[in-house]
Amino acid sequence: MTEELLTNQNDYLEAGIHIATKSRSPGMKKFIYKVREDGLYLLDLKTIDDRIRAAAKMIGGYAPNEVVVTASRIYAIVPAQKFAELIGAKFIKGRVTPGIFTNPHREDFMEPKLILISDSRNEKQAIKEASKINMPIVALSDTDNSTKFIDLVIPVNNRGRRSLALVYFLLAREILKERGNTGEFNHTISDFEAKVEASTAPMEGREHRGFGGDRERRGGFGGDRERRGGFGGRERRPY
Amino acid sequence: MTEELLTNQNDYLEAGIHIATKSRSPGMKKFIYKVREDGLYLLDLKTIDDRIRAAAKMIGGYAPNEVVVTASRIYAIVPAQKFAELIGAKFIKGRVTPGIFTNPHREDFMEPKLILISDSRNEKQAIKEASKINMPIVALSDTDNSTKFIDLVIPVNNRGRRSLALVYFLLAREILKERGNTGEFNHTISDFEAKVEASTAPMEGREHRGFGGDRERRGGFGGDRERRGGFGGRERRPY
Repeated sequence: MTEELLTNQNDYLEAGIHIATKSRSPGMKKFIYKVREDGLYLLDLKTIDDRIRAAAKMIGGYAPNEVVVTASRIYAIVPAQKFAELIGAKFIKGRVTPGIFTNPHREDFMEPKLILISDSRNEKQAIKEASKINMPIVALSDTDNSTKFIDLVIPVNNRGRRSLALVYFLLAREILKERGNTGEFNHTISDFEAKVEASTAPMEGREHRGFGGDRERRGGFGGDRERRGGFGGRERRPY
Repeated sequence: MTEELLTNQNDYLEAGIHIATKSRSPGMKKFIYKVREDGLYLLDLKTIDDRIRAAAKMIGGYAPNEVVVTASRIYAIVPAQKFAELIGAKFIKGRVTPGIFTNPHREDFMEPKLILISDSRNEKQAIKEASKINMPIVALSDTDNSTKFIDLVIPVNNRGRRSLALVYFLLAREILKERGNTGEFNHTISDFEAKVEASTAPMEGREHRGFGGDRERRGGFGGDRERRGGFGGRERRPY
């Protein structure tokens, strides 16, 4: 009855993949395991694992170039781009503009069959464009994200640097497996990680102690500048 | 840019696969192509086709016995059972009782990884049980069905005898294809059809003229007795 996770439980916990936010949208309620005493919601690990599997099975069914991945924030852009490269998917960085999937006269027009969204709050326009043509939408969703228009939710900390690296690493590995790729997966999680630049990471040394814990100790400052905008004081730490 | 459908467009139209109801739930709005003058909503054929493909890709990624299919009404039971048999899935006929996926002491306990629902209104309990363990839920959904808890919606006339036969036929065929089954698919749509018994089908002769049109002419009576309960006077016909 017990079953292997896709990776060691500690890998999940150290990446803070399950550490969500203090807000909860109605559609995300069912993925929440508990509320930590400081008010942060924690996602259920087994469900995260199951959903990464489900998404990989779904995405793995499509031809590589039928899949498009979007990412707008730096911590998502790096892993999402690496992911797209490995599975042969199209990649859209930053804003999706109206018509990209519907106007054949545009230079960047494309006709994917499935879209993977890194952050449904920041990639609203991508969701809107995809839903115009009813394309199935898979999304990495944090507890404060709306699940409207999302077909398959991967509940996950979708703002953490290491969390995003781990999710995209696992998705890429599993999708290649689904496609019958029996070779070794010669990539590491750190290949998927956005590198923290010295200038924006005064406390870089702490990064390596574990993302969740690092966030907590950092108390709202450090290398995670981008994420902080609008979420000042939001803290995440492991159980 | 134009693309083949999974079956001839006429097959879809004659089975009335796109002919929905006069009600519309918020989640189903986006799948609606237009409202017919008599008030019936029509679903977009291309989207139906895309969604059957998407579901097949997703379901095809799971091992046969990791999938469970539910059906409660006769027009769904026959095709869903045939479908389950062909793809090797588990099948639940009628009511799902609490604990079936969570209580290992039950005789009928099972641990599927994905559930396919024939009718979200009639199989509410199945949805509830599946969502307790956050299992991905794929559902055949008519315009009046709630999409709450459903991960992947296959928008479709989920009460018509021929519509259900066609959907399950296509799903079975595509799933076997996804699994790499290169052999011939030696089954016909009528293998998936619930047979209309003479006693309940005074107007059987009309069945063969096309389901939609038959419904219209029948004006609320005929072999489709089961469906009528609570929907008296609901009529469907092709465009």
